[in-house]
Amino acid sequence: MRNEEFLQQFNKRLESLIKTTNKVEQAMNYSLLSSGKRIRPLLIKTACEDMMVDADLIWHPALAIELFHTASLIHDDLPQIDDSPLRRGRPSCHVVYGNDFAILAGDGLMLKSFEVLSQSPADPRVKTLLLTHFSRATYEVLIGEALDVEYTGKSQKLSEILKMYSKKTGGLFSFCTASGAILSERFQLIEKFTKLGSVLGIWFQVVDDLKDALSDEKAAGKTVGRDKMLGKPTVVSIFGVHKAKDFADKLLEGVLNRFDEYGMNKTVDFLKSLAV
Amino acid sequence: MRNEEFLQQFNKRLESLIKTTNKVEQAMNYSLLSSGKRIRPLLIKTACEDMMVDADLIWHPALAIELFHTASLIHDDLPQIDDSPLRRGRPSCHVVYGNDFAILAGDGLMLKSFEVLSQSPADPRVKTLLLTHFSRATYEVLIGEALDVEYTGKSQKLSEILKMYSKKTGGLFSFCTASGAILSERFQLIEKFTKLGSVLGIWFQVVDDLKDALSDEKAAGKTVGRDKMLGKPTVVSIFGVHKAKDFADKLLEGVLNRFDEYGMNKTVDFLKSLAV
Repeated sequence: MRNEEFLQQFNKRLESLIKTTNKVEQAMNYSLLSSGKRIRPLLIKTACEDMMVDADLIWHPALAIELFHTASLIHDDLPQIDDSPLRRGRPSCHVVYGNDFAILAGDGLMLKSFEVLSQSPADPRVKTLLLTHFSRATYEVLIGEALDVEYTGKSQKLSEILKMYSKKTGGLFSFCTASGAILSERFQLIEKFTKLGSVLGIWFQVVDDLKDALSDEKAAGKTVGRDKMLGKPTVVSIFGVHKAKDFADKLLEGVLNRFDEYGMNKTVDFLKSLAV
Repeated sequence: MRNEEFLQQFNKRLESLIKTTNKVEQAMNYSLLSSGKRIRPLLIKTACEDMMVDADLIWHPALAIELFHTASLIHDDLPQIDDSPLRRGRPSCHVVYGNDFAILAGDGLMLKSFEVLSQSPADPRVKTLLLTHFSRATYEVLIGEALDVEYTGKSQKLSEILKMYSKKTGGLFSFCTASGAILSERFQLIEKFTKLGSVLGIWFQVVDDLKDALSDEKAAGKTVGRDKMLGKPTVVSIFGVHKAKDFADKLLEGVLNRFDEYGMNKTVDFLKSLAV
């Protein structure tokens, strides 16, 4: 399936997940159905196609990861955490629905992600493996987020920042890249692909830092320049823009070479398109 | 196993779940390891024993439900939601760790609950059923919480309040009472026990409302008298104390009779002990 066609179907399925009847589900849909780039679902799609996974098995993890990712953005944007009033090109969830409903909407999307994944048509043995890896990955993200908050305003060693990135952003990327190995039951590859996904997460976060430092708000669709304002230690704040860019390029090159060796052509192409 | 012995082992296992290395995990343990009554884990234990479930299978759902329940208490107590500074006899999580870490700690405990449940030694087919019911139950709780917030300061019909209770408190109770049927693979009983658990949740919430209206803070171990102050419509605010007490007694009696018919002796005894 072409990525564009996948995205169309994906967004339709996303729309049908939550039947809006009350305020919290309205808040959930508000954030979920905004114009996200759906990078993680697409990465699951390409990783699964590269591993010849049955098309019917791709939707549930793809939907689950977008639900969880949206939840983490809502909580991140709260005034109590990153205080970002803008997300995906429009006011953040708490700006529209209030802090109480933004907290609850984030919770709801997290829980819904597990409900959706538990409804996967995969074989029970594969499904439990999927749920195990998903729960670990999402917990990693949470710990990474919390370390990010804990480090704010403090100076940190590069190694600690990279470890934080590998959790905060690498957690979900690991699940994406490993999902193909899990669903195709090539269990010996799970660990390898989890590690590569984690490096990919670091790369993606450094690129995000660069965007935050350089780009304008309109292009980013979210509040920018906040890392510096909040006193967040980042790879950019340690390396400077040029060295950070070099570092990111090298990380990506390393991961793409490894995926290439495994014949992950669609994944490699998709990642290259993100790097432009 | 006697309930006291179960509780001792349960608390030991709970202590070993999260290895405190950073601030958010400290906040998670702070709330998790306080002196909760562990009513939901005990209800799982009795429901499973009544259904002759293998003892090794009881721990994971029992731990998972306590992790999730604690998460929901932390988020409930936040200034943005119920604003309760006292919980389980000591300062609430956000009072000690700040609102940012309380939000993240709640998230972390929710995610950990799924991680723990996904590590259950149950047969994959049973485990996926367990995860399906757990994710539905926890999502119900979240919707119930959100309806509670949405209804605050408004007058509501009794039927709407009861529906909210059946989600907010009935969600987890349903999972508890159904867990025995799931783990003993008596699948035809799951739906019945889920419904009975939901009524049990209404009963428990009305008793909680009565406590909030009548008891003192020291005995309750949490902030009381808040329902009225916050303008929350409750069964007590509609019925008054005496009629609400009657209503609760009749609900419990009905559920106990049904459980009695199924030979759920330990469950009946445990619920009776809660009613004293």
